[in-house]
Parts: sequence; C-alpha cells; structure tokens
Amino acid sequence: MRNKDFITGKVPITKEEVRAISINKLDLLNAKTFIDVGAGTGSVSIEAGYSYPNLKVIAIERNDDAYELVNKNKEKFNLKNVEVIKAYAPIKLDGDIKADAIFLGGTGKKLEEIIDWSKELLVPGGRLVANFIIIDTFYEMLRLIKEKGFKEIDVTVLNVAKLEKLGTGEYFKPHNPIYIISCEKGVE
Amino acid sequence: MRNKDFITGKVPITKEEVRAISINKLDLLNAKTFIDVGAGTGSVSIEAGYSYPNLKVIAIERNDDAYELVNKNKEKFNLKNVEVIKAYAPIKLDGDIKADAIFLGGTGKKLEEIIDWSKELLVPGGRLVANFIIIDTFYEMLRLIKEKGFKEIDVTVLNVAKLEKLGTGEYFKPHNPIYIISCEKGVE
Amino acid sequence: MRNKDFITGKVPITKEEVRAISINKLDLLNAKTFIDVGAGTGSVSIEAGYSYPNLKVIAIERNDDAYELVNKNKEKFNLKNVEVIKAYAPIKLDGDIKADAIFLGGTGKKLEEIIDWSKELLVPGGRLVANFIIIDTFYEMLRLIKEKGFKEIDVTVLNVAKLEKLGTGEYFKPHNPIYIISCEKGVE
Amino acid sequence: MRNKDFITGKVPITKEEVRAISINKLDLLNAKTFIDVGAGTGSVSIEAGYSYPNLKVIAIERNDDAYELVNKNKEKFNLKNVEVIKAYAPIKLDGDIKADAIFLGGTGKKLEEIIDWSKELLVPGGRLVANFIIIDTFYEMLRLIKEKGFKEIDVTVLNVAKLEKLGTGEYFKPHNPIYIISCEKGVE
Repeated sequence: MRNKDFITGKVPITKEEVRAISINKLDLLNAKTFIDVGAGTGSVSIEAGYSYPNLKVIAIERNDDAYELVNKNKEKFNLKNVEVIKAYAPIKLDGDIKADAIFLGGTGKKLEEIIDWSKELLVPGGRLVANFIIIDTFYEMLRLIKEKGFKEIDVTVLNVAKLEKLGTGEYFKPHNPIYIISCEKGVE
Repeated sequence: MRNKDFITGKVPITKEEVRAISINKLDLLNAKTFIDVGAGTGSVSIEAGYSYPNLKVIAIERNDDAYELVNKNKEKFNLKNVEVIKAYAPIKLDGDIKADAIFLGGTGKKLEEIIDWSKELLVPGGRLVANFIIIDTFYEMLRLIKEKGFKEIDVTVLNVAKLEKLGTGEYFKPHNPIYIISCEKGVE
Repeated sequence: MRNKDFITGKVPITKEEVRAISINKLDLLNAKTFIDVGAGTGSVSIEAGYSYPNLKVIAIERNDDAYELVNKNKEKFNLKNVEVIKAYAPIKLDGDIKADAIFLGGTGKKLEEIIDWSKELLVPGGRLVANFIIIDTFYEMLRLIKEKGFKEIDVTVLNVAKLEKLGTGEYFKPHNPIYIISCEKGVE
Repeated sequence: MRNKDFITGKVPITKEEVRAISINKLDLLNAKTFIDVGAGTGSVSIEAGYSYPNLKVIAIERNDDAYELVNKNKEKFNLKNVEVIKAYAPIKLDGDIKADAIFLGGTGKKLEEIIDWSKELLVPGGRLVANFIIIDTFYEMLRLIKEKGFKEIDVTVLNVAKLEKLGTGEYFKPHNPIYIISCEKGVE
C-alpha cells in the first residue's frame, strides 16, 4: 500500500518502504494472530489486515489522536479483522490469546517488559519485529533479545531516499535511517 | 520470505529487503497476471506466486542456469501458478495476455523495447516496477517512462546494511545501493 | 573548520564533512591559485584560504546575500589571500591567471560553459572538483568531463548523518546525499 | 592525498574520504603534537605529517606488518616530523609530552584505558577523534566520553559509495559505514 492511501494526521506514519520490509519479516502469510504494539497511525495494522483477510490483527495504541486514526483507517478500508485497543502496552489480553507475530513500532520506556510480554504471547517460532530510529533503544533491544534467547536474529539498517523536485531538477531526499530487528521465539 | 528459503546457485539473488519493497510496489493483492522479466533466481516470481495463490505469474529468463533455478524454486514451493519461459524479453506471449503488473529485474540492452512492450501488455492503471544498480540504466529508464507518459512515478534509492560478526564485535555490512522505480500505465 | 565557525545567513552552507572531502580532493597543499565558482557562503573559499596562507583564492559569487557573506567571513578570519568577485561564472579573469584547482559548488544552467572555461584556466594536471545534490546535473557533469577528456575521474556519493537528540534519546539525522566528482585536466 | 599515493600491504587502509574528514576534525592547523593510536598503514599519520610540516606526529602501532608500512610510507614521503613507535597503546611516552590532538583508528580491547590516557595527554581544548566500524565499540566510546566529561561531542555516520565499472555500465560500490566521533577535552 502507498502512504497516500492512509488517512494521516499529525501522527508520524511508518514510511511505505519500511512498512513493506517489516510486514515481510513478520511472515504473516500463514499466521492467525498478529499484535501491533504502539500502532501509531496504524499503517502496519491496516496493511496487515487488508493484505491477509484471514489474519486477526490486534492494534494497541495509547495516544488519543493515534487511536482515532487507526480506527478511521480501519473504517476506510472496511476491515473487520482489525481490533483496536486503547491502552499502554504491555497489557493483559482477554482469553487465551497467542500471537504468531508481534510488531513493535513505538516502544518507549517499557522495552524490557514489552519484550518479556511478547515472549509470553508468541507461539514457538513466532516472529518479533521492531523498528527504531533512536540508537539507544535499538541497541538496548539487540542486547535484550540476545540475553533472552531469541533466535534467528536479523538486523538491518535501512537508508531510504526518495527522488523529489528541487528547482528545475530532482534530488534524493533522505528519510531517517531505520533499524529493523527481527527474531523468533525459539522452539523449546 | 527469507533469502535462505531459496535455492540459489551462482546466480545473484535479489536481497530480501529489496524484494519485499518491489513486490509491495507491484500491488499484487487484487492482480490477476504478473510478468517477471529477467527473473534471475526467480525469487520475485516465487515469492509473488507463493504469497498470492490466485495470481498467475509468468517468469521470463533467458540464462540457462537462472532458468533452471527458477524451476527448482518453483518445485521446492510446489507452485502451480508460476509459468517459466526460457526466452529473451521482449517476446510475443501466447493468447490475449494482459498484465496487471510487470517487474524488470534484469534489464539489459533492450530497455526501450521492453518498456514499450510493457506498456502494451499492461492494463490501464497497471504497475511497472524496476530495480537497478547500474546508474546509466536507472537514468535511462527514468527518462523513458517520463517521455512515454507513465504516471505516479516514484523513485527510491535504497541503502541496506546488515549486521554481521567481525572479530568479537558486529558491524553493518552494506549491500549495493538499489534504485527502485515504480510507475503506472495511465488510464486513457 | 567546524560549520559553527562561519557566519551564515539564509544561504545554504556546504556541510563540514562535504567541505573537508572536497578540499582534500582539490589537492591545495602545493597549489598557487584556486578558484571557487558559486561560492555560496564561501565556506570552501574561506577554509581553503585559512588552511593555506600562501594560496591565492578567487571566489566568484553572483548572489547578493551570498557575496556579502563571503566578504563577512573573509573579514572574520582576516584573510588577505581571498579575493571575492561578484559575477556570474564563467567570466573573463584579469591578467594571465591559471588555476591549480577549481571547485564548482553552485553550478546552475551554464554547466558546459563552466567546464570548458575551467579546462582553459586549469594548468595541466590541475584539479576540478564539483558537488551536486541534483542528480540531473551530476549525471550531465559526469558525461561532459568524460567527453571532454578529463582524467583521473573519481565519483563519490556521500551519505552523512549526524547524531542528534530526539526526546530522551539520540538518532542519526541524515543530510542530503551529495555527489562529489573530482578529475584532472590531462597533461598534453 | 589519494589512497593510491600510499604503499599498502594486506593492512586495511583508512579510505581517503574518511581520512579527510577525520584529519579535518582533528584541527591540526595550529597544533604542535598529534598522536595516532593504532596507526595501521599510517595513512592518517602520513597525511597529517605531510600536510603540516611543523606538526610533530607520533604514530603508535603494535602490529609488525603495519609498523613496517608506516615506516615505508614515512620514507616514501620523506617525513622527518613523523615518529613511529612499535607498541601497544596506552604506553608511557618519553619526556613531558602533551598532545593537541589524538586519533584512535584501531582501538581494540583497551578502549577505556586509552580514553583515560588520551585525556591525560591532551592539552585543555585538545581534540580526540575516533573511527569505528564495530557498533559495540562505537557505542562504548560514546558512553565513555560522555561519562568522562569530554565536550563538543560530534558524532557522524558516514556512508561512502564509489562509482565503479560493472559490465558496460557503472554502479556505486558501498564502503562499510564508518562512525566518526570527535570531542574535546574541556578547559578546566
């Protein structure tokens, strides 16, 4: 999906190239349940729900504006498989929910708690994918997933630049470098 | 899909991050027919065919080794919806084929012919996506699609680096910068 | 020199990392005369004049604000060896001036004329260095210097990002990618 | 100086763009003494000594092959102002040496000791510049210089790619991303 497909407000939206890679690394094709933590505009949740109609998507977002945006985008694309929860992760989820994949897009101060909670929720072999622009949080996450025994750790730094007009010519306008971590809960 | 999922030989394989973005830009979700020109190892064809079981994929590849690899990967993933044609594009396709999306991954000297042929084959609004590492070919393609009236031109340069071990530490090993062009055949 | 050392206004200043590389590629250590075309804030002229007191620096700048800035910076660093000319290059220079090195930082529409004029002015083996963010102009320059027989062509694309505060953490804020071309007038 | 100017062996050489920026950040113009720790091929020492004939350069290198290379390059450029010491930093230097600038190009396991030793040796306002490709060491250095009260901390990540021939075209071949840290010993 293109970024212009989404209703956005002042909430920063994951850029489409970053979203494409992140969703790809989540391996959602045969997944049943996907949790999007700190959903922001919800673009990851929405594209996941739209691309995989049989997938159950749970988007968790605590910010008022962002929460509303996810709901607006959910409506725009008429997605029945996306549930939006207004809360500050980690939270206790109803029922006996297990996740095949979890995405961390807006992790703040509770990084370790969220990683532990993700490990609890993930099925064996389940995928955990996270995006960072802050190097401190990136580095902390990398340390934590190694320490906590996640497997198949893959770390990418992505520098995207887009061709834009400038005067009578065109130049490559750079986006912020993004660190993408993906890993799996091991099969014990 | 991860790069390690594919059978590869000496044929260079599109890196998984580049493939994820390229497939995303092809908008295959509701597409019927997709043509992959210069399929290489076929990773784009295979991932497209695997991710979208209702999509008809036509992979065109003239190189012997590459042709065999696409077939091996097709077998590995047991894909009935991928047809592999050993030929040097542009070629005349049987029947009255129209494409919703075309990917150029291995365009060589016949760039303008292939673009004209793509425009013929594409349905109105159909997507043309191309990857380049050679700057000459990238610029030439950009010039040609503008001249030939393609719409929604979007140009990305992608610098991916992957964390790898070096001695007792880790460093970001860079991949070659890739230029990704996507555009649409206009609706007349 | 650090960027904060310079008086700047609304005129864009060459970033210090780009300036360091460009001046390095100009090989000014044993040069007598250096011409800076489209001097902008004059940071390249000023750093060159400051670093090499025996070098004669000629800065050509047509923009009013920029012209004034070069002069202000010249004064700030008390540089007697920097001459600032308010003009639109190429111009006829007084006397029998030959240049050991020429820098193009703000080339606009007269690219080919400026390259020809540079070739005239340069001593055999003299260095021509140029910075671009516009890809069209970069590519045109590359084509022209090949066509006109410049030697030792070296092309760098430079992606610089600087660590900056963001909330309670730090992220790498990217600068625009810069194309740096350097080459030499051959010795006939 | 160009990389081809140096005698190199199997010892990895700092790329010329990285060297230009690093030397620039060392502010050697009015410096008296510069120490290059882990000199490698010595390209930083040699270019510093060559560019600033009045500068005293002390290159410390423990590796046999690298030590010999620094000496060979010193001879090639006939530099009387470069002293090469075969040792594993930190070491006690003769006399009452104070440094205006210190460069860390090959810091291994003794990072904290070397930073402490650098702080001892530097004059107030003296410059400490370091290059890293290993992210662990980069982060550790950043943490340590903050902790130890260094000032004017400036952190750059540099992605350089060079245009090279590929088949009948040209592509940008990427170098490893380099983290460049520069800072100053505060004036107490």
